[in-house]
Amino acid sequence: MTITVVAGNPKPASRTLDAGRRLAEALTGLPADHVIDVVDLGPGLLGWGDEDVRRAVETVSGSSLVVFASPTFKATYTGLLKLFLDQFAGGTGLAGVVSVPLMLGAGPGHALAPELLLKPVLSELGGTCALPGLYLIDSTYTEDSALADYASRWSPTVAALIAGR
Amino acid sequence: MTITVVAGNPKPASRTLDAGRRLAEALTGLPADHVIDVVDLGPGLLGWGDEDVRRAVETVSGSSLVVFASPTFKATYTGLLKLFLDQFAGGTGLAGVVSVPLMLGAGPGHALAPELLLKPVLSELGGTCALPGLYLIDSTYTEDSALADYASRWSPTVAALIAGR
Amino acid sequence: MTITVVAGNPKPASRTLDAGRRLAEALTGLPADHVIDVVDLGPGLLGWGDEDVRRAVETVSGSSLVVFASPTFKATYTGLLKLFLDQFAGGTGLAGVVSVPLMLGAGPGHALAPELLLKPVLSELGGTCALPGLYLIDSTYTEDSALADYASRWSPTVAALIAGR
Amino acid sequence: MTITVVAGNPKPASRTLDAGRRLAEALTGLPADHVIDVVDLGPGLLGWGDEDVRRAVETVSGSSLVVFASPTFKATYTGLLKLFLDQFAGGTGLAGVVSVPLMLGAGPGHALAPELLLKPVLSELGGTCALPGLYLIDSTYTEDSALADYASRWSPTVAALIAGR
Repeated sequence: MTITVVAGNPKPASRTLDAGRRLAEALTGLPADHVIDVVDLGPGLLGWGDEDVRRAVETVSGSSLVVFASPTFKATYTGLLKLFLDQFAGGTGLAGVVSVPLMLGAGPGHALAPELLLKPVLSELGGTCALPGLYLIDSTYTEDSALADYASRWSPTVAALIAGR
Repeated sequence: MTITVVAGNPKPASRTLDAGRRLAEALTGLPADHVIDVVDLGPGLLGWGDEDVRRAVETVSGSSLVVFASPTFKATYTGLLKLFLDQFAGGTGLAGVVSVPLMLGAGPGHALAPELLLKPVLSELGGTCALPGLYLIDSTYTEDSALADYASRWSPTVAALIAGR
Repeated sequence: MTITVVAGNPKPASRTLDAGRRLAEALTGLPADHVIDVVDLGPGLLGWGDEDVRRAVETVSGSSLVVFASPTFKATYTGLLKLFLDQFAGGTGLAGVVSVPLMLGAGPGHALAPELLLKPVLSELGGTCALPGLYLIDSTYTEDSALADYASRWSPTVAALIAGR
Repeated sequence: MTITVVAGNPKPASRTLDAGRRLAEALTGLPADHVIDVVDLGPGLLGWGDEDVRRAVETVSGSSLVVFASPTFKATYTGLLKLFLDQFAGGTGLAGVVSVPLMLGAGPGHALAPELLLKPVLSELGGTCALPGLYLIDSTYTEDSALADYASRWSPTVAALIAGR
């Protein structure tokens, strides 16, 4: 089982990334094998054929479970995260990957965004998006119970999907 | 394993219902145990507490897999189907149910509707919505390969989820 | 100028309807000419050709501005409201009507629903949906400033559209 | 009246940009004053404070009408376009700007994307998004009537909004 976290925050080493790590571990009981901080990929994201980008895409495509984490910009995921997702093959780029949409925001008003906006992109790439989108408040997620509640509700589904892979 | 089809077409015994049956069988290898043609529930849907509606909700909540099938009205699912879904408990009404969103339309222009619009409602009810929304063309679905392609792509996921239940 | 409020709450004379009236008046400076409490239309909504339903549709289609108000059920508008909207002609049923999407909910988590889910239905019916979806908290909307802020921001746009009709 | 076209295609001088120009002219009767091919802004888009990016944002914010044009990547707008939109102030960055969502795709299956996905981002930035999202087939848009039909349907609304500004 390979577990990966993708964080699409323009700020490196963000809370977004931290929350993604925590969620991946809470869902599987294991620390992430790979963490891709998309901003580190730099200008290679703006075109096609960059070697580092290609490797990052391969890591994600070959994972069992990937948490895709984004801050909320303009009521949806960041352009930076989408730039990375645009590098995957449509329909098959996430085939067989349990793909978990996670967004963080300052307040509760955008809580529907991971379900209505981020999950459909992962689904379009062929991911197995069996879990609902999770939205966390960025100032309280390390203390409130939202992440743990979600993980305890959905980790059996993750286990069933990975066992049945 | 209990398999149910819910059809939200104001016309009884519609192609919507037929497509739902075919999809349920193609995904599981078994005919549906229950078929709920929502229009048969009649005016009891307009309020709360109708006995037939309650029984239909219970049947759905207790199923292993449910195909929710709707024609496309105004670029989304019907009011009739939503009236029935409004009778379920938020967050838990579809807990543990593999919930499959299916829509039929006259042309391809509304193909994103099951993924972007119907699936989130099933997800809000707590359903396990691991499969992407399926959209079929109502005049050709018995002849084209869309339903069979989808079933062969996603039946292993259904099997893993039901085995892991 | 004809102003109409449509309320899609299964409970008659609801806060949904009250909020719709207030919004229509705040946007135009005039009380609503017509108020359609969809639940009053009853079982005629479940089929086609009911005379009262037809008249209600005509009233809406012939209005200059209509507020479409719904409580939040399962993270979106009610089946009852959609049942009524299903009675309009696709693409033209709201042609020339400034169509304002309004939803009320118990908490802030579903605040994106009027913009992402209700507005597209009105747009599919051909409405002029120039205003963003408005979401109000049902327990505080008579005291907080959300409705007034929205009305002062958007009433000039309403005036321009109605003058240019 | 200042008219601007923004094109978010990673390929410079794309059909996306051409379609945006045609639409802006068809809606207003005038050629675009400014054309922003987002890809030309380069790596400055990946952070904050780039001078060329700032100028492009100002041009857009100060326009009367802006067509935001994107090819369809993964069933929605491009990461490149979103990267540019992320540079605007939330709620006010497009205040007073008639903002028109346009997407091009290879086939009809993603036709709901401009309405359901691109328009809400423009709306979140405070734009006046009175026109429905337009979706064009990239191989036929210069010959089919979709663009002209849309322009003749909606140019009076554009005129009313700009006169009432």
